[in-house]
Amino acid sequence: MTLKRKDLLTIRELEPEEIFLILETADSMKEIASREIKKVPALRGKTVINLFYEPSTRTRTSFEIAGKWLSADVVNISTSASSVTKGESLLDTGKTLQAMHPDVVVIRHPVPGAPKILADRLQASIINAGDGAHEHPTQALLDLFTIRERLGRLEGLKVAIVGDISHSRVARSNIQAMRKVGIEVRVAGPATLLPRFPEQLGVEATTDVEDAIADADVIMMLRIQRERHGPTMLPSLREYSRLFGLTVERVKKAKEGVLIMHPGPINRGVEIAPEVADGPYSLILDQVTNGVAIRMGLLYLLTGGQRTER
Amino acid sequence: MTLKRKDLLTIRELEPEEIFLILETADSMKEIASREIKKVPALRGKTVINLFYEPSTRTRTSFEIAGKWLSADVVNISTSASSVTKGESLLDTGKTLQAMHPDVVVIRHPVPGAPKILADRLQASIINAGDGAHEHPTQALLDLFTIRERLGRLEGLKVAIVGDISHSRVARSNIQAMRKVGIEVRVAGPATLLPRFPEQLGVEATTDVEDAIADADVIMMLRIQRERHGPTMLPSLREYSRLFGLTVERVKKAKEGVLIMHPGPINRGVEIAPEVADGPYSLILDQVTNGVAIRMGLLYLLTGGQRTER
Amino acid sequence: MTLKRKDLLTIRELEPEEIFLILETADSMKEIASREIKKVPALRGKTVINLFYEPSTRTRTSFEIAGKWLSADVVNISTSASSVTKGESLLDTGKTLQAMHPDVVVIRHPVPGAPKILADRLQASIINAGDGAHEHPTQALLDLFTIRERLGRLEGLKVAIVGDISHSRVARSNIQAMRKVGIEVRVAGPATLLPRFPEQLGVEATTDVEDAIADADVIMMLRIQRERHGPTMLPSLREYSRLFGLTVERVKKAKEGVLIMHPGPINRGVEIAPEVADGPYSLILDQVTNGVAIRMGLLYLLTGGQRTER
Repeated sequence: MTLKRKDLLTIRELEPEEIFLILETADSMKEIASREIKKVPALRGKTVINLFYEPSTRTRTSFEIAGKWLSADVVNISTSASSVTKGESLLDTGKTLQAMHPDVVVIRHPVPGAPKILADRLQASIINAGDGAHEHPTQALLDLFTIRERLGRLEGLKVAIVGDISHSRVARSNIQAMRKVGIEVRVAGPATLLPRFPEQLGVEATTDVEDAIADADVIMMLRIQRERHGPTMLPSLREYSRLFGLTVERVKKAKEGVLIMHPGPINRGVEIAPEVADGPYSLILDQVTNGVAIRMGLLYLLTGGQRTER
Repeated sequence: MTLKRKDLLTIRELEPEEIFLILETADSMKEIASREIKKVPALRGKTVINLFYEPSTRTRTSFEIAGKWLSADVVNISTSASSVTKGESLLDTGKTLQAMHPDVVVIRHPVPGAPKILADRLQASIINAGDGAHEHPTQALLDLFTIRERLGRLEGLKVAIVGDISHSRVARSNIQAMRKVGIEVRVAGPATLLPRFPEQLGVEATTDVEDAIADADVIMMLRIQRERHGPTMLPSLREYSRLFGLTVERVKKAKEGVLIMHPGPINRGVEIAPEVADGPYSLILDQVTNGVAIRMGLLYLLTGGQRTER
Repeated sequence: MTLKRKDLLTIRELEPEEIFLILETADSMKEIASREIKKVPALRGKTVINLFYEPSTRTRTSFEIAGKWLSADVVNISTSASSVTKGESLLDTGKTLQAMHPDVVVIRHPVPGAPKILADRLQASIINAGDGAHEHPTQALLDLFTIRERLGRLEGLKVAIVGDISHSRVARSNIQAMRKVGIEVRVAGPATLLPRFPEQLGVEATTDVEDAIADADVIMMLRIQRERHGPTMLPSLREYSRLFGLTVERVKKAKEGVLIMHPGPINRGVEIAPEVADGPYSLILDQVTNGVAIRMGLLYLLTGGQRTER
């Protein structure tokens, strides 16, 4: 089976079978990470450009490692070291890069829709690595992968997503991914940070975090991103932590063995207590490990790789 | 045939036959970019250092891709992440790098002559990737390559270069390269930005852009580099655009099918109209593509590669 | 013989035989630098992360080249381009990176002990590439290598280290390394920059530089690091240079053929005169060359490589 699309821009556009294809392919990639020699020739002679307009350790490194383990040539471009400072438009930068014949361009950009601008005009495969408050599809894919890996299934599960729902690309991509595979989603957060029309997203929304997590199989905490909203929308951090932070006490009120996720980087003691982040039911580091596998799978599929049927 | 020099510092120092050797070698490299597997072992075990004292997306990326497709180890050093902040002199940095046995050092530096300082003292091959307002030889080589690729010849052609001639390393390198291969060059721009003694450069200079482009086969527009000259030398951008910008109307007054070039990044609506930059006679993206081929050819020749005679 | 430790954090923790094992291994690596094809497959499929919280050209480049010549995948992370700006703790960054299964993490950090924080919690091998004023063990190893290479032995030699002894990680690591292999060490510098209890370090301390270097086989000058101490501790640079700088006159008063070392980058005319730095007895560039060999040897040993007995 092959992925019949050039780009991965959003979860919204994916069919459920495409999601499962990516998960299956990532599954066969994951084993490479535990080999003595972490290297396969699948993308030899392919060029992957990481075009990052926002700083990032984990996502850029994850894509870079994924590409290198597949033997691709990986080129990093970050705004600080780029002619972006000379004021070239995104599309002109994209067309310039295209003229160098990359196979894949991974882009992170503060403006929603930026990856689509490139996808519509470039031959290279475009992967959205986060565009403003819009989408972060590889995050949602690695999150599904992680849940399925631990619980053996996705359909029928209940997930609570807690935090700044309305500004989070992680929440937006995950809500759509989860709805597509039959997960029931509840979101919780301060009233000002909840989506206005949750029913349109197919989720239930509440300002009562304990209500949201009560019967959840998985609790996904979002990072408080102080840089994304003004001081008036958010109560003080201490207040936020008191009302919405995932403390040991709150976890105790949830289902026994409820799984804890967070896209990272975590703010310890703000949205999540250290004991919870480091606890036995935390999947936070599994998410990171699986991120490499998901990106390997995606790079492989987008450059024409085929998944062998089992 | 081999290139009998260690470094590429300027176009000025090149014999015409050396220029043609580089163009021929690049020609045989260009095909690699369209392969399924863009990788040849020519520079395996060679080390290329990109030492950039000025920000650059396209040139650094072009050299990096060229090196990687040839299987070289490529190491990027940019001022922002370097001990240059500790105030080490250029020559000491160069000698330190030399002690790590690189085969090639590609340098971009704001000071004219900086690459020569390294070339005179280091064993590694030095490639000038732009030194202040002095030279940018690989740009001129890729420009010649692009013209020849499209028109089948160089000798006897007429090229108009328009913009800030006196501060442009692109213009300086191109004028010399073009004169050496028998191209007739006219330059146009505001009086304050024209060379004082154009006859010494072997070109005609005029402040009338329409006169300059009237019978040209190729029009090469230069980027307005606001960072390189004070506010008094340049009329306002709107005024500049009105007097010197390459508009659709101006192109209509030139020869039918006149080719349009620009080293990029372009300022749309300032020195060049979007319709012209994106039009059928624009070679702007061919220039980028050919830049990789020229740099592959150069890296190959400077590390001892031999061009097979046809 | 193999190195029976996961990490290299300090010289203090090393047994003399471990030091000699690393020197021997580096010795067999050094020859690779002079090959036509500088590439061996020893670390193929291994991943090395360079995690630099302080700017550095030479050390980062040295590790990057060492890794690449051994065929490792090398990933650079520098603070300027990282989510460190999002305020994640060092340990959380480390655990996140660990989840991507690197084999080695090379870390430079302004806080003493930072590498140990990672070493205690991560499976990957940690190499300390400089932690504040604490240690810089690979520098000391390459210094020992360089001295032994030139003089054929270490035991019984006399070395003078001159400069800001008390704030220098280079001095701290070197003093320990030298004491372990039987080198006699004298340190000299302004009284405010000398260690308070030199006898605890096993060295003699003096404010009289000429006395310190009088019968030394090697003089190791330290870089004046203006960023590391306030204006009151240090006399003016001119005064410093006059009292402690290594001038031609001073060298003449020392032993004939005394060897000169400096970790770089040098401040010409401050702590060392240009004639001395560039003179026939200067080992400064040998130190850089040997730095790559030492780091190759270390990467090889820490990833399980075995040194064949001769």
